[in-house]
This record gives sequence, structure tokens and C-alpha cells, in this order.
Amino acid sequence: MSPDALKALFRNHPSGVAVITADSGTGPVAMTASSLFSISVAPPLLVFSASVMSSSTPALLAAETLVIHLIDADSHDIAVLGATSGVDRFADPDQWAILPTGEPYYTAPRRRLRGRVVKKEDAGAATLFVVHVIDSWQEDEDDASPLVYHNREWHVLGDVSRLA
Amino acid sequence: MSPDALKALFRNHPSGVAVITADSGTGPVAMTASSLFSISVAPPLLVFSASVMSSSTPALLAAETLVIHLIDADSHDIAVLGATSGVDRFADPDQWAILPTGEPYYTAPRRRLRGRVVKKEDAGAATLFVVHVIDSWQEDEDDASPLVYHNREWHVLGDVSRLA
Repeated sequence: MSPDALKALFRNHPSGVAVITADSGTGPVAMTASSLFSISVAPPLLVFSASVMSSSTPALLAAETLVIHLIDADSHDIAVLGATSGVDRFADPDQWAILPTGEPYYTAPRRRLRGRVVKKEDAGAATLFVVHVIDSWQEDEDDASPLVYHNREWHVLGDVSRLA
Repeated sequence: MSPDALKALFRNHPSGVAVITADSGTGPVAMTASSLFSISVAPPLLVFSASVMSSSTPALLAAETLVIHLIDADSHDIAVLGATSGVDRFADPDQWAILPTGEPYYTAPRRRLRGRVVKKEDAGAATLFVVHVIDSWQEDEDDASPLVYHNREWHVLGDVSRLA
């Protein structure tokens, strides 16, 4: 199967959006990921993948812990930032802070988790990360308008998108 | 972190919907998965997870090859079928067929892939499958209305959900 054919197929497979941040000692890095999912609640484990093409991957591979932000429509700009090449993703000091445990994080997203990388598995042109969740923070459970990435566009879920 | 807290967080992380079918010699099985993503296009690799709680997991673990359907709103009923416990998911002979290579598949979904399981990785209460895509079939690339699962409801993407 050709790379283009697989890309064409998966262009139509939507996903939620996460932004992953870490600092392994060489400064903060951020990466937008459409590959995050929860695979186990006990123990609490997440999986995401990072492409060898991503500038943040070396620092993520070196990180012991990281922060995973789950992105709503109102923090859409953070998802765009983490997906834009050639920019300083931490240029605006009003957008981010550092947790007492040392990890950088963006302040706008209303849901985030902190976890420890427990497994890294090479798979083709990417690495699969398995993350054990240590703690989490959520501003408001009920008022989410999650962002969805689909066919190179951003969508937001709500009453209008609900299947009757 | 408690299982309930992790569930509450990820309830607001939307996902695309896939239905995975296989027959390892004990009859056809089907499972609806919200955990599918593409991690590499060269080689063409997909990842999904199967919970130890799912009735189909033993047969998927024994399968060498399987079929992955990417679900649109118009084959929503197949996603419901693959997520419903205690029913015969192949009771209706009009809904499915068998590929010349032996794998069962549902005929309604308009995009599907066939792949070989190249890696299985235990992670907590689930197994991660890495699948090398062998071939794929797509009815119509441009006319997709992909289904999204979010907060125990189904959504469909379209003009109304697009972020302005």
C-alpha cells in the first residue's frame, strides 16, 4: 500500500487533539498529537505516537515525565502552535508556566494530565509512547467543546453535530 | 489517579470510530474501537488497542490478519453492533461477507483496510496491536461523513461542525 493511499484513507478518520509538552533538560518542547488514546484505566495508561519527522521527538524520547493537554475549541490556538514548524512554541510567556514538578505546560487548555513514560516502542517511522498517568487537572468537566481534527480542518462538537 | 477520574477526563476526548473483524478459525468476531490511528505511512502501520474486557479480544489475539473498517455516519449501525454485548454480531447474512483471503468483513462501511498483525504489546488491562496494512478499499474518497464518538454519544462531522 502506498503512503499516499494510506494518507488519503486516514484523512477521513477524525481524531481528538492533544498537545504534549516536556523538558528533558534542553528547554521546553511542545507537539500537537492526533494519536492520543487511553488504553487502560487500572493502571491508568495512555498511548500516543511521535513521528521521526517531528522536531520535538528527540526531546520527548529523552523525557521521563510529560504533560498532555486535551484540547477544546477555545484553546485551538495552542493546537495550531504545537503543529506549526519553525516557530518558537514558547515565545509568549503569558501562554505557559512550569509545574512544581518541572514540566512546562500551557495554561489555557482546561484539561491536562501529567504522566511518566513507561514504554517506548519503535514502529516504522514513529515511536509509540506508553504513559502512566500520575495526576490530572480539569477546570470544568461538564462544559467541554472538544476540538476534532479531520481532513486538515478543525471541527468542534456540540448539539449541531450530534447524530439524531 | 483513580479509574473514574481518568474515564471522566477521556469522556471529553473524541475519537473516530473503527470496527475490526477477524476469524482465527473459531468463527468471525467484530469489535468497535475508538483507539485506532495511523502511526507510519512508510511502512504503512496502524495501531489500535483491545481491552481484556472485550469478548472479541482472544480471537483478535489469535488472528494473523484482520480487517479494519473506518466508520461513516451511514454505517453507524455497524459501530453499534460491534459495541453491543451479548448479541451475535454476524446474525444477519446480508451485512457481511468473506474476503478471498479469508477475513470476514461488513459490506456497508465505505472504507476498509486489511492488515497483518506485526506486534502485540501488553499494556495494563489492554493489548496494543501494531498492524502492517496489506491493502485497502475505498468507495468514494470525497464523500465522507465520518462518525465521531464523544461522551457516550455519536456525532457526525460536516459543514456545521467546522470551526470558523
